[in-house]
Amino acid sequence: MKTLIVHAHPEPNSLNGALKDLAVSTLEGAGHEVRVSDLYAMGWKAVVDARDYGPDASSPLKVALDSGRAFEAGTLTADVLAEQEKLLWADTVIFQFPLWWYSMPAILKGWVDRVFTYRFAYGVGEHSDTKYGERFGEGTLAGRRALLSVTAGGPQAHYAARGVNGPIEDLLFPIQHGILYYPGIEVLPPFVLYGTDRMGDEEYAEAARAWERRLLTLESTEPIAFRRQNSGDYEIPSLHLKEGLEPAGRSGFGLHVRG
Amino acid sequence: MKTLIVHAHPEPNSLNGALKDLAVSTLEGAGHEVRVSDLYAMGWKAVVDARDYGPDASSPLKVALDSGRAFEAGTLTADVLAEQEKLLWADTVIFQFPLWWYSMPAILKGWVDRVFTYRFAYGVGEHSDTKYGERFGEGTLAGRRALLSVTAGGPQAHYAARGVNGPIEDLLFPIQHGILYYPGIEVLPPFVLYGTDRMGDEEYAEAARAWERRLLTLESTEPIAFRRQNSGDYEIPSLHLKEGLEPAGRSGFGLHVRG
Repeated sequence: MKTLIVHAHPEPNSLNGALKDLAVSTLEGAGHEVRVSDLYAMGWKAVVDARDYGPDASSPLKVALDSGRAFEAGTLTADVLAEQEKLLWADTVIFQFPLWWYSMPAILKGWVDRVFTYRFAYGVGEHSDTKYGERFGEGTLAGRRALLSVTAGGPQAHYAARGVNGPIEDLLFPIQHGILYYPGIEVLPPFVLYGTDRMGDEEYAEAARAWERRLLTLESTEPIAFRRQNSGDYEIPSLHLKEGLEPAGRSGFGLHVRG
Repeated sequence: MKTLIVHAHPEPNSLNGALKDLAVSTLEGAGHEVRVSDLYAMGWKAVVDARDYGPDASSPLKVALDSGRAFEAGTLTADVLAEQEKLLWADTVIFQFPLWWYSMPAILKGWVDRVFTYRFAYGVGEHSDTKYGERFGEGTLAGRRALLSVTAGGPQAHYAARGVNGPIEDLLFPIQHGILYYPGIEVLPPFVLYGTDRMGDEEYAEAARAWERRLLTLESTEPIAFRRQNSGDYEIPSLHLKEGLEPAGRSGFGLHVRG
């Protein structure tokens, strides 16, 4: 495998830092190639602005169109071009981050906002009676697989089907489906550690073993069965799931996962 | 009303900029006090790091504990202190932002990550057999109301109950429930404009009228009926919704909205 690890924690000597280091050593030890984007260490610019598009920025700024024009002209900033190149190089992408306020840390959201430009990650493909662009299962990053490795301070029960936070698979849906599957990446079930505010040495040792097992079985892990947009499951152009396709009683985000 | 508008768009001459300006003029015209946090204009630092806690940062950095210690010592940075003061001043908070990758722009997530510190927005209140801290309906910001004003490039159909993006109320749940209701803020139904990639002058005029109507009826608008955590609806400490409380067939995020 060629694995890109995108890492988003300010403290190298943290649980997230340890999981990232363990991923590097485990994958390299198994003969895989690994590259790391350690966003804090890189001083990643988190905020989209006109400087991202240089001479291709229009006035007033149009984020989508300007990013697409700069992408096509090859004039995106060097930091963004490097990340797009790493994504095209990789066959597997691991995101390591703490769940802050039920989502990614801002620095990682800013990586998505800046790297996933128009014409690269969205605004790809033609529209017709049977196709609404190349997205949700098709697109620039098709053929790749991704995995979220997430730490959550609170206990697992709070993220269960009836838990007050909402189910973890729904909290991660905007990332897994909306960000990753959109440009074509297949998404493996996430690796989530809970209760990390109170994790002792013994619990860490157990978590590390579980993480190694996940890392060493990535290639045989089945992705989440998100429905492909252009496979016939959706009406075009409303992109409503066709009536009757869902398992009985399923609604919401779960509609977009096959049977 | 005392309204804080938190605005997150890089271009003043944009739809989001126009909606923010219209909110200021409409509310002030109706005799309300308004303050604006224009995050791009302020050059808001989006990224949590050790500099946020100055001499109170521990090594290794512990984001939650260090932010709580700096909050209690009054040594958070001036920009964060100013935003916390604005939140305590306001009775109404409006967030104006474009939906980028199904969530907030990174600069706004970074406002949350940095301003919603431990002991201010979480880690508040005691735990007992009937209470699991002050959160989800109670907390430092109780008594305030918030409203998301969001622009989405894609058409409304894609955000409907069967739409490929998932329902808008579920996409916004991690923000409305997870970020805003958590420290006690009641959340009004969002104001969402769709299809903004192709909005003409006539559609803008109609959207502006709808926005003015929402702004002038904020005080009489009922908030989303999220369930209070410590009201008896949840088991403690699992925080599972008690069996039988949900309307028939409801699951997922919808469990946490009453009747």
